Amino acid sequence: MNSLRFKVINMSPPQTLAVSFLAAIFVGTLLLLLPIATTQPISPLDAMFTATSATTVTGLVVLDTGTDFTVFGQIVIMILIKIGGLGLMTFTIMIILVLGKKIGLKERILIQQSFNQTSVGGMVRLVKVLFLFALAMELIATLILSIRWVPEYGWGFGLFTSLFHAVSAFNNAGFSLWSDSLSSYVGDPTVNLVITFLFITGGIGFTVLYDLFYTRNFRHLSLHSKIMLVGTLVVNIFAMILIFVLEYMNPETLGMLTMGEKLWAAYFQAVTPRTAGFNSLDIGSLEPSTIVFLLLLMFIGAGSASTGSGIKLTTFLVIVLAVVTYLRGKNESVVFSRTIPPHIVTRSLAIVVISLMAVFGGIFLLSITEQSPFMMIVFEAFSAFGTVGLSMGLTDELSAVGKQVIMVLMFVGRIGPVTLAFALAKDFKSNVRYPKGDIFTG
Amino acid sequence: MNSLRFKVINMSPPQTLAVSFLAAIFVGTLLLLLPIATTQPISPLDAMFTATSATTVTGLVVLDTGTDFTVFGQIVIMILIKIGGLGLMTFTIMIILVLGKKIGLKERILIQQSFNQTSVGGMVRLVKVLFLFALAMELIATLILSIRWVPEYGWGFGLFTSLFHAVSAFNNAGFSLWSDSLSSYVGDPTVNLVITFLFITGGIGFTVLYDLFYTRNFRHLSLHSKIMLVGTLVVNIFAMILIFVLEYMNPETLGMLTMGEKLWAAYFQAVTPRTAGFNSLDIGSLEPSTIVFLLLLMFIGAGSASTGSGIKLTTFLVIVLAVVTYLRGKNESVVFSRTIPPHIVTRSLAIVVISLMAVFGGIFLLSITEQSPFMMIVFEAFSAFGTVGLSMGLTDELSAVGKQVIMVLMFVGRIGPVTLAFALAKDFKSNVRYPKGDIFTG
Ligand SMILES: [K+]
Ligand SMILES: [K+]
Repeated sequence: MNSLRFKVINMSPPQTLAVSFLAAIFVGTLLLLLPIATTQPISPLDAMFTATSATTVTGLVVLDTGTDFTVFGQIVIMILIKIGGLGLMTFTIMIILVLGKKIGLKERILIQQSFNQTSVGGMVRLVKVLFLFALAMELIATLILSIRWVPEYGWGFGLFTSLFHAVSAFNNAGFSLWSDSLSSYVGDPTVNLVITFLFITGGIGFTVLYDLFYTRNFRHLSLHSKIMLVGTLVVNIFAMILIFVLEYMNPETLGMLTMGEKLWAAYFQAVTPRTAGFNSLDIGSLEPSTIVFLLLLMFIGAGSASTGSGIKLTTFLVIVLAVVTYLRGKNESVVFSRTIPPHIVTRSLAIVVISLMAVFGGIFLLSITEQSPFMMIVFEAFSAFGTVGLSMGLTDELSAVGKQVIMVLMFVGRIGPVTLAFALAKDFKSNVRYPKGDIFTG
Repeated sequence: MNSLRFKVINMSPPQTLAVSFLAAIFVGTLLLLLPIATTQPISPLDAMFTATSATTVTGLVVLDTGTDFTVFGQIVIMILIKIGGLGLMTFTIMIILVLGKKIGLKERILIQQSFNQTSVGGMVRLVKVLFLFALAMELIATLILSIRWVPEYGWGFGLFTSLFHAVSAFNNAGFSLWSDSLSSYVGDPTVNLVITFLFITGGIGFTVLYDLFYTRNFRHLSLHSKIMLVGTLVVNIFAMILIFVLEYMNPETLGMLTMGEKLWAAYFQAVTPRTAGFNSLDIGSLEPSTIVFLLLLMFIGAGSASTGSGIKLTTFLVIVLAVVTYLRGKNESVVFSRTIPPHIVTRSLAIVVISLMAVFGGIFLLSITEQSPFMMIVFEAFSAFGTVGLSMGLTDELSAVGKQVIMVLMFVGRIGPVTLAFALAKDFKSNVRYPKGDIFTG
C-alpha cells in the first residue's frame, strides 16, 4: 500500500509519513470547520489545533470536546484518532520489516512466513490484522464500558461515550467527552481497569502483542518483548508507589480520598503519563515533585510500534542499563543473557538528545509568548512532545502563537522519534560477543 | 606527582581527583569555621557549603563573602578557588597526556617534546608552566584593576579586592566581595574587559592557549583549538545579540540603561553564564525567555582542561554539528576539513544525557525540599551543576537539605563530566575516511 506509493511519488518513508499526517490534519480541520461539527462557530486555528491534537493522539484541547462539538464533530475527532494511532503503528511495523530487522527467534519465523516481505500483498495482510485487532479491542471495551455507562446515561450517549473513550484509550489519545476527563470515576474499578488496560495494551507495541499471542512462554519471547513487559511492570509499580507517597498528604489530590480511591488514583496517575493522557486527578493540584516526576514519564512514553509516542520505554531502559553498566565498570550491557549492541545505545542517546532539543526550543518560545508560571509551560511542552495530553491548565490560556508552538511540538513528537530511529537505524554497525539482542527504540 | 600517587595508593585517576577535592573541601571547612575566619559564628553546614562552592569554583553563596568573612576567611576562599581551578585543569591535561591523546599536528610535536611523557619530571614541569601562567594572568589583572579600584577604595581594600576578583575571575569562580557582584560596574569598560578577558581566557582551556602561544597562525592550529576559538566567538556574539533583544525593553535590566551600558551589560551577561558566574544585572529580574536561554549556556559551560565546568563547548558543538549533518542527509560531520569520529559523537551524547540525569535528580529533590517557584529551582540546579554561580535568589532561602543537594550538584558538576570523558575515552574505536580530528569533550 504505502510501499507502492513510496515508489510512485518518490518520497522517503518518513516524508510519506509526514505528508500523510499533514493531509489528515488538513482534511480534519476542514471537517471540524463545518457548521454541523460544532455547537457554535470556532476559529480555523482552534479547528486545526483540535485536528492536530487528535491525529497526533495527544489530547490537549482548546475547546471542550463534549460541549463545543456535535456528535458529528466528535466522530470526526474519533476517526482522526484512529488514523493517527493505527497509521503510525502500521508505519513503524513496516519500517521494521523493510529494514529487515529481526523480531526475536520464535517470532521471526512466524512473521517472516506471513509478513516479512516488502510485497504489497504482505503489507495489506499485516495492516488488516492490525486493523482487526484494534477494532476487536475497542468493541469489546465498548461493551464492558456500556455496562457501566448505559445505566447512567441511557442508550444513546451511554453507548457513544463508551465507544469514544474506548477508541481514545486504545489509541492513547486522551480525548474525553467530560471536561474533567475521568475525574468523576477516580475510584471506579470498571472504568479504571478497562481504560488503563486499553491504553497499556495499545501502548506496549504490536510486535510485543504478536509475540505474546504466538509464543505464550516468557522465556521464548524476543528480547524486545521481554524488556517491554518487565520494563512496563517495573516502571508502573515504581511510579505508583512514588506518586502514592508524594501525594498522600495533598488535600487537593489523594488526601481526601478513601484508601481504595487513593490506590486507584495513584495507579491511574502512574500509568497515564506515558502518553495515554487521561486523568482522574486535577493535574494542576499535584505536588511540584510529582509534576517533575511526570515530566520524566511523559518524556519516556510508550513502546515502539504502538499507539503511543515519547522517546519510547526501550530507549530509556537501554540508556539506564548502559549507565548502570558504566558505573559497575563493565564494558557491555547484558540483559536477559543478551548483549545490547553499542549502536543501539548510541541511537538511544541520539534520540534523547535531539528530542530534548525540540522540547527545549518549545519551552524557549513559550516562555516568550506565554505569561504563565514556568512549571505550567515546561509541563505543557513535555506533554505536547510526548503526545500525552495532560495539562496543568496552560492549554486553556494559550496565545495564538503559543497554540502554533504546541501544534508543532505535537507533530514533531508524534513522527519525530520514529523517523529518527528509521534514519539512525541504517548508520551503525556492530560486532559483539554475546548473541545480539535487537531492541526497537524510538 | 599525581601519577606517582596513583601507583602508591592504587586509586584510579578519577578516584584520586574526587578524594583530593573532598580533602580540600574538608580542610577548607575547618579553616572557615575558625573564629578568625568570620565576623560572627557560622554553622558547619554553611562553612562546608562555602568551601564546596569555592573548591568547585561555583560561586553560589549562602553567606555574604564581603561582610560575613574576615580577610583571613576571604584568603581561605581564594586559595580554595585556586586549588579547585588549577587542580582540575592539571588533572585534565594529565589525562589527555596519559591517555596518549594527540593535540593536533603542530602542537603534538611541541608538546610531545616537552610534556607528552608520563614521567614525574614531565608532569612537574607542565604543572609549573600552568601555575606560573595562571599567576602571571592574575597578577597583571590585579595591577590593571588596582588602577580602577585603589583610587576608589584606598590601597588596602583596593589592592585586595583587585587580587580577589582577578583570582576569582581567572578561575571562573564568580565569588565577589560585593553582595550584588559587579552590578555597580555595569557600564565600566575596565572592569568589564578585564574580568571577562580573565574568565574567557581561563575558560577556553590550557591546550588552546598553549597551541595559540606556539602556533600563532590560525590555519596551523589543532582542530580542537580552532573549534574552541571560533565556537567561543560565535556563541558569545549570538548570546549577546539574543540577550540584547530579549531584555531591551525590560525596565529592571537593560531598559533604564544608556546605550553604552546596555551593550556592556548584554555582553557581560552573554559571556558570564558559561561558568564564570559574575553578574552585572539582577538575575532574578531577567525575562523568562532569557532565563531559559541562560539554562542552555550554563549547561554548555567552558572548554576542556580549563578552569570552567559544564558539559564543555566542544561537546555541545560536536552534537550540533552531528545533528546538522544528519538533517543534511550526510554521513560524516566535517569541520575545518576534518571528520569528527563517531566515537566522539557518542561520547558527547553520553556526557549530555548523563549530565541531564544528574540535573534532573537535583531538580526533583529540590522540588520536594524547597517551596520556591519552579524556575528558581531549575535555574539553581543548572547553575550548581555547571558550577556557574548565578542565582535567581534561591541560594539565600535554601533549606538545610536543599543546601546539601546543591553541594552534591556542584561537586558532581565539577568532577563529573571530565571523569566521564576519561572513562568513555578508552571505550570507543573508529575508522574514518577523512584525517581524524581529535576534540576533547567533557
Ligand atoms: K495522549
Ligand atoms: K563559577
